Amino acid sequence: VIADAVTSLRRYAVIGVGAIGGYYGARLAAAGHELHVVARSDADHLRRHGLRVDSVDGDVDLPAGSFAVHDEPAEVPPVDVVLLAVKTTIGPEAAAALVAPLAGPETTVVAMQNGLGVEAPLAAVAGGPVLGGMCFVCSNKVAPGHVRHLDFGSVTFGQHTADGRAAGLTPAVEAVAADFEKAGVRVSRLADLAAGRWRKLVWNIPYNGLSVVLDAGTDALMADPGARTLVRQIMGEVLAAAGACGHPIPERFADEMLEATAAMTPYDTSMKLDALAGRPLEIDAIYGAPLAAAHDVGVAMPRTETLAHQLRFLDARPTKRRHSVRPAI
Amino acid sequence: VIADAVTSLRRYAVIGVGAIGGYYGARLAAAGHELHVVARSDADHLRRHGLRVDSVDGDVDLPAGSFAVHDEPAEVPPVDVVLLAVKTTIGPEAAAALVAPLAGPETTVVAMQNGLGVEAPLAAVAGGPVLGGMCFVCSNKVAPGHVRHLDFGSVTFGQHTADGRAAGLTPAVEAVAADFEKAGVRVSRLADLAAGRWRKLVWNIPYNGLSVVLDAGTDALMADPGARTLVRQIMGEVLAAAGACGHPIPERFADEMLEATAAMTPYDTSMKLDALAGRPLEIDAIYGAPLAAAHDVGVAMPRTETLAHQLRFLDARPTKRRHSVRPAI
Repeated sequence: VIADAVTSLRRYAVIGVGAIGGYYGARLAAAGHELHVVARSDADHLRRHGLRVDSVDGDVDLPAGSFAVHDEPAEVPPVDVVLLAVKTTIGPEAAAALVAPLAGPETTVVAMQNGLGVEAPLAAVAGGPVLGGMCFVCSNKVAPGHVRHLDFGSVTFGQHTADGRAAGLTPAVEAVAADFEKAGVRVSRLADLAAGRWRKLVWNIPYNGLSVVLDAGTDALMADPGARTLVRQIMGEVLAAAGACGHPIPERFADEMLEATAAMTPYDTSMKLDALAGRPLEIDAIYGAPLAAAHDVGVAMPRTETLAHQLRFLDARPTKRRHSVRPAI
Repeated sequence: VIADAVTSLRRYAVIGVGAIGGYYGARLAAAGHELHVVARSDADHLRRHGLRVDSVDGDVDLPAGSFAVHDEPAEVPPVDVVLLAVKTTIGPEAAAALVAPLAGPETTVVAMQNGLGVEAPLAAVAGGPVLGGMCFVCSNKVAPGHVRHLDFGSVTFGQHTADGRAAGLTPAVEAVAADFEKAGVRVSRLADLAAGRWRKLVWNIPYNGLSVVLDAGTDALMADPGARTLVRQIMGEVLAAAGACGHPIPERFADEMLEATAAMTPYDTSMKLDALAGRPLEIDAIYGAPLAAAHDVGVAMPRTETLAHQLRFLDARPTKRRHSVRPAI
């Protein structure tokens, strides 16, 4: 039994020790996996004080020295899995550059990121499988080396394919999902990653953007009949684009999501949190890529495009930066 | 000569003594016309202290007693012309009720208001001609009985018809336009009022709404390539709707308006001023009516509709009222 447990433990590199990387990295290390983190501004703090997660699912305290801290990806020894947990705002080239030194043929790369198309630039530099990991989690980095996990926490994994078709439930998906599951994280396994990405956009595109442009929570949006209508219309555009891109989603999925959001405890979207903190907004990944994909198949998304233009305007405005910009890693 | 001048003087009633009614009412009175104003909260102040306009085109000071102040339209004696100068946010029924007691067969009613369709409810209660008066003016009521006129000031007049077709340059239009002109106001005379209303919407629909939703001036909107693209796309929707409604506007009109706006001194739109002052926004007249008209002829205006939903959300939100709401009259 001990031998089995040992052989199942693997080496993880986590790039970015923020709300996502800090939370899941700590859980994996606590479960016994060897953890390497790549951090920039927080590296010294992590080396000296370790990583602490206050979590509704049980706190985790990783003492200094119990995991390896690196300033650059090139310093990390070969690992089994790389979790890329930086905001997409660094751009696809920078994301690929972070992953490239670690992405040998035996290594699985997981894009723990929002939006559409985030895996493709990683696949271009990776020798092994590339997965998408879609997190449904309420967590925040409250200070260097200190993450607060407030609610939810599940991750949906699927494997990227060059042509966007379903990869099926691959060994790489199964292995990573099993590691997370054993570390106490609720997981879902997806045969068709692109379909899953589109389904997540059905929620993210209306709620992320409107919460920023209208400075509103999901509860306020759902309580206003016009805003609710607009959310549903935008969802309709995402369904049309997804269908035309080969990933049909039934209309009732949008209706159910609308109902579920109206019923759920209101919380701020990730883009709202970014806006409040003065961080750059993930507009390219959540809006730009789906709009480009829809355009390629001849589908108009005028409401989504309106929202994207508005977000880019707000993102570019210097006065919106109410707090200091936090570095991407 | 004296006899001619005297016979051309007429009796004007101005309903609402704000930025519009106060400014043009003062100019008409200063030119010798008999002025009756209908005011609510400001009536006592106007009776005791008169009406003062600080204007880039020359100040006007109407002493107390030099014009008549009424609390209700029913108190006003028969007049030649009624200028309705209240915000459209009072709604069509209330607007018609304000005008009805004054609108005999010999009386011309002028809707000095924004938006589309504001004349129809007045025509339903008026015995004489109903005009639209579209003001291009930068003025503010800075205190009761005190208006500041900062820039511009022209008014475009046209006569309403039940079927929306061109009325031509009617005697009523000519008479009112001549009075304003002699009072020192630059005027334009429109043969086709509905066409003029649509042309004004080409500017008002994008700039009013975006200036509020994005909390931005026209200069900031024009400096951002995405916002500029969005403005032009929204203008395109207005052109399509206007054309389908029988009032074609050439594409170059939108391009010229875009260029002119980029070149002009930035100023806040009327809706932005309303939002800043915590007043209700003129959403029905500027968005609701054009959207309904477009819908009736089968034209989609998804970007305009998005903006309208966003504005209604912001308008309904209690926290947006940063200052006390100023009464409509």
